[in-house]
Amino acid sequence: MTDQQTTIHELKKRMAEFVRERDWEQFHNPKNLSMSIAIEAAELMEHFQWLTAEESKNLDLDALHEISEELADIVIYALSMANFLDLDLSESILGKMDKNIRKYPKEKVRGKAHKYTWYRDNGNDKE
Amino acid sequence: MTDQQTTIHELKKRMAEFVRERDWEQFHNPKNLSMSIAIEAAELMEHFQWLTAEESKNLDLDALHEISEELADIVIYALSMANFLDLDLSESILGKMDKNIRKYPKEKVRGKAHKYTWYRDNGNDKE
Amino acid sequence: MTDQQTTIHELKKRMAEFVRERDWEQFHNPKNLSMSIAIEAAELMEHFQWLTAEESKNLDLDALHEISEELADIVIYALSMANFLDLDLSESILGKMDKNIRKYPKEKVRGKAHKYTWYRDNGNDKE
Amino acid sequence: MTDQQTTIHELKKRMAEFVRERDWEQFHNPKNLSMSIAIEAAELMEHFQWLTAEESKNLDLDALHEISEELADIVIYALSMANFLDLDLSESILGKMDKNIRKYPKEKVRGKAHKYTWYRDNGNDKE
Repeated sequence: MTDQQTTIHELKKRMAEFVRERDWEQFHNPKNLSMSIAIEAAELMEHFQWLTAEESKNLDLDALHEISEELADIVIYALSMANFLDLDLSESILGKMDKNIRKYPKEKVRGKAHKYTWYRDNGNDKE
Repeated sequence: MTDQQTTIHELKKRMAEFVRERDWEQFHNPKNLSMSIAIEAAELMEHFQWLTAEESKNLDLDALHEISEELADIVIYALSMANFLDLDLSESILGKMDKNIRKYPKEKVRGKAHKYTWYRDNGNDKE
Repeated sequence: MTDQQTTIHELKKRMAEFVRERDWEQFHNPKNLSMSIAIEAAELMEHFQWLTAEESKNLDLDALHEISEELADIVIYALSMANFLDLDLSESILGKMDKNIRKYPKEKVRGKAHKYTWYRDNGNDKE
Repeated sequence: MTDQQTTIHELKKRMAEFVRERDWEQFHNPKNLSMSIAIEAAELMEHFQWLTAEESKNLDLDALHEISEELADIVIYALSMANFLDLDLSESILGKMDKNIRKYPKEKVRGKAHKYTWYRDNGNDKE
């Protein structure tokens, strides 16, 4: 499995090269890239728009392939923004995961969507 | 730099654990996750909404930190969807990058936003 | 009911005045406004993110009020874009509705989500 | 100009009829409709993704026509949600405009994007 060998750094490097070789840094400013991510996110959503939650769990291989490409597009633009802003994406992700672990203590939120929303709105945000 | 040591597999594993420990697989169906990604993408965009392209390149440290967290949220949900659908995200990303390299030949699209859009709409998509 | 007396023109006029009085035309360019609409659309979506389709049909009064405000925000920015681009929004809406009536003939698509998607992807788009 | 004669009620009625004749109320639940609005908003944004703010003000007639159709799609789904939830959309819009007038006093925010964001984040929200 490629995911086991591929670092975020490797993916960022490839994306930086792709952009540089096309002289596209001028278009890949953070404002434009934030639009690109949102546009790709909507294209992903389009696959699920009229499906029930259940149907969205049982996708055929064609749908699955298209969805994997939309997901890739989203992350590709996220990598390009991390490049432009010189961000360590893994550090941000691991940091945010730790924050979420503290924010949603497993013994309290276990299996509760109600709490899920409730915690987001009402806090428990003591860091 | 954490990006140099962190694989996609490592990040996916941590996220899967976070979701499993909270019994949140029931909410993290692909339909809901596609909404989550789009919502986080909009929160990222909100930082750039009234900035000029130039201003979006010159962010202060506070803004940069908040933006890195929004970017993390987007990728976190993308990892969760890859987990749910059992997708090899790196393979999808590398595959899509290769496709883009063929779709936008560097000698043809160099520095051209016009071409950029044009290629997207009119193709050169012969694979 | 206010909807019975209020024309699109009346709403556009009020919005134009609001923007002009604040000298905000400079920020309300079409690019920024397209971002604003997408951001408000995501805020609307946030209310439904973790709800089932059934739950989304049975909202309490508080949720309903917040949702009506998000919906208003979306249309407000759409009105502002119509103002900026000098578009007759009703004409566009009525025109698009006619197009959809022809595109999805009621006797063919009746009650079919499958067809719904199918028609979007495969066409029947002969105009 | 059609906008001068067309009420929100008239547009809502036409949309309700379109949905009813196709037996699509089952798909047009609020959760799905919120996704539809966000998807259409992203399609609108796609037209501006790589344009500068200046370019987005100077669109050719073809682009303008396509943009008017995307804008129509957004409002059409907003009307459908107002129908489903039995909301008086004009009332919500006029109410939200009044709220914004109080929230952003013209003498204070005149021509200031800084204030714009600042007011959103820091309040002045005493109602």
